[in-house]
Amino acid sequence: MSGDEQYERGLEALREADSGAGQKLLEALADVSPELSYRSVAWSYGDLYVRPELARRDRELMCLGVLTALGDTGSQLEVHVNGALNAGLTPSEIVEALLQAVVYCGVPRAVNATLVAKKVFAERNLLPVRPTPAR
Amino acid sequence: MSGDEQYERGLEALREADSGAGQKLLEALADVSPELSYRSVAWSYGDLYVRPELARRDRELMCLGVLTALGDTGSQLEVHVNGALNAGLTPSEIVEALLQAVVYCGVPRAVNATLVAKKVFAERNLLPVRPTPAR
Amino acid sequence: MSGDEQYERGLEALREADSGAGQKLLEALADVSPELSYRSVAWSYGDLYVRPELARRDRELMCLGVLTALGDTGSQLEVHVNGALNAGLTPSEIVEALLQAVVYCGVPRAVNATLVAKKVFAERNLLPVRPTPAR
Amino acid sequence: MSGDEQYERGLEALREADSGAGQKLLEALADVSPELSYRSVAWSYGDLYVRPELARRDRELMCLGVLTALGDTGSQLEVHVNGALNAGLTPSEIVEALLQAVVYCGVPRAVNATLVAKKVFAERNLLPVRPTPAR
Amino acid sequence: MSGDEQYERGLEALREADSGAGQKLLEALADVSPELSYRSVAWSYGDLYVRPELARRDRELMCLGVLTALGDTGSQLEVHVNGALNAGLTPSEIVEALLQAVVYCGVPRAVNATLVAKKVFAERNLLPVRPTPAR
Amino acid sequence: MSGDEQYERGLEALREADSGAGQKLLEALADVSPELSYRSVAWSYGDLYVRPELARRDRELMCLGVLTALGDTGSQLEVHVNGALNAGLTPSEIVEALLQAVVYCGVPRAVNATLVAKKVFAERNLLPVRPTPAR
Repeated sequence: MSGDEQYERGLEALREADSGAGQKLLEALADVSPELSYRSVAWSYGDLYVRPELARRDRELMCLGVLTALGDTGSQLEVHVNGALNAGLTPSEIVEALLQAVVYCGVPRAVNATLVAKKVFAERNLLPVRPTPAR
Repeated sequence: MSGDEQYERGLEALREADSGAGQKLLEALADVSPELSYRSVAWSYGDLYVRPELARRDRELMCLGVLTALGDTGSQLEVHVNGALNAGLTPSEIVEALLQAVVYCGVPRAVNATLVAKKVFAERNLLPVRPTPAR
Repeated sequence: MSGDEQYERGLEALREADSGAGQKLLEALADVSPELSYRSVAWSYGDLYVRPELARRDRELMCLGVLTALGDTGSQLEVHVNGALNAGLTPSEIVEALLQAVVYCGVPRAVNATLVAKKVFAERNLLPVRPTPAR
Repeated sequence: MSGDEQYERGLEALREADSGAGQKLLEALADVSPELSYRSVAWSYGDLYVRPELARRDRELMCLGVLTALGDTGSQLEVHVNGALNAGLTPSEIVEALLQAVVYCGVPRAVNATLVAKKVFAERNLLPVRPTPAR
Repeated sequence: MSGDEQYERGLEALREADSGAGQKLLEALADVSPELSYRSVAWSYGDLYVRPELARRDRELMCLGVLTALGDTGSQLEVHVNGALNAGLTPSEIVEALLQAVVYCGVPRAVNATLVAKKVFAERNLLPVRPTPAR
Repeated sequence: MSGDEQYERGLEALREADSGAGQKLLEALADVSPELSYRSVAWSYGDLYVRPELARRDRELMCLGVLTALGDTGSQLEVHVNGALNAGLTPSEIVEALLQAVVYCGVPRAVNATLVAKKVFAERNLLPVRPTPAR
């Protein structure tokens, strides 16, 4: 598969994954580094995201873990909280996953990520979050 | 529940979760900071790990994401690669989760985590890893 | 001591420690993750902060060091600059502690933390800071 | 050379390097930690920047790499994107350098840094950036 | 260009760039994640490294900056100190670049990176390093 | 004060502060970057450490916080655990300070730092550590 095919496939996967939240970032990059925009889409969504070796729901959990720990990743977390919801994670599961993170990367990182999740939940009318046993 | 009950419950959950890999860390702390050892177990395993709001398998994915991104977490990753296997993730899924991380936290972090996973897989006779579609 | 007693004790210690600066964070979490809010208070303030093994002033210095180095911790730094003042550190000592950090975690982290301290000092009418020999 | 001479030499080098972008940071520190401001200038610009062992253009590339990877360094990146332009790097080279970073520290860090670069380019009427072969 | 062509081109570029230092890492990954190995090569060397928008020497400086700041990147730094030498940076320039980093990411990161550089210089009989004005 | 006077004063302060633990690092740098070695000493010990605005004991607490949170700082932590002991912190206070860090930067960073402290305590015959109320 050529790079361009991968990019096209990635754009489609991204739109399906995040309901458009990533689109803002791609547009912001358009006049400064379309090259970075292109790779973000082609590598993350065109190459990895569609591989059958891991469920999309699991990929989104992994992304939440990585982005929470890194810090200074608000825009990307917004994309992936949307992606996590669209891949079938419930708000309660997402909030609990961010709670799990607190022991490993500390309260400030977990709080920051939880407040980004809150923003996305608010936009999608999912507040307040009620703790629910996972299925 | 008192702190001590939480610790006892945590010790049990930890043993079940990681087949003993965390025991080394607890012992290393015994004569310097049993207090830190106590909280690691009581908070992570006695409090959070056993909550029904998120499946253990999902908690382990989240931990892999956080620990991969943080870096300098070899001993903890060893515990949680074991935990991930014991919670039902396959070696192929773990390897693919670490591959997903590469776009978000870069090649060095992903390579380091993958080499820790390799060490655990070797101890459990799970090498070589064959990419397999997730169920 | 049960978790709830620890939380109650923690809330009290927190209020005393930071003059209310942490309250905003707890409220922001209320409809998304009261669970995270609960642990932040119970663990940090209900469990650790009140232990006699380290003076509160020393705990606050340690927190300043950790939060400065982590980065992306503005809200938490605000809480702990207030906490440091309330535990008896002078503005001059706080500023000097952040200056000490510069050699170990670099200018950007030290500058960010110092600008958060400036914000807190301004709210408490403590500007300009005059370097003063520590007692 | 005394500290004060180093500071004076640094101030001059800084002004020449960044067209005044660093001045805002120095002023923000003036009433809280002139001591930190002093060291930032004396160490970075008065001592290191003027050493003949590395070209200024190369120093700026190194700074871009460090600041991109660290995260939470927006203000400093602004200074050094200006510094990089003033030292002779083209917008296309800067954008490509930030693209190179993506493989090592991941998409979120590279995107954040690229958006800071975009802000500086906009202020200097250098948008849109057109990829150009380096000389 | 297909992914496989990109990988082949990348392998060639990598060998030329680092005199074989990266080969150890690729081999270590072979039985656990050839997929990660493949992307490291195809993305970093097959795609980015060969682009004409930035000189290889400049790419290596950028990599040194990123890897120094990240920390816990010893194996990758080894590859890129070799890469930097092969792209024309002198030992004196590399050491000075790592010295420049100290102001931005602190002494521990700069010391760690410098000791990796020392190891590579020792293997290539380039010690002791003599500070030399850059051309 | 000239740079060389600052370096000489720093060397003396360092020896007094850390009982020689930093000497290994300085020697390791001698044939690769005496320039980095020089700045580490002149800036950290010759300039900052001797300033009267903060007690040495407080500086060491701050350093422990920064180094614990950064990660991948084993050699420097060794120097500063020695420094903390020499500045009057007890093993119990140091262990408790590292315990305080756990809530803010997570278990892996706190465990790593505590195991470095254990190493230093072992060398100085200070194990096992007995929790003791701070004075």
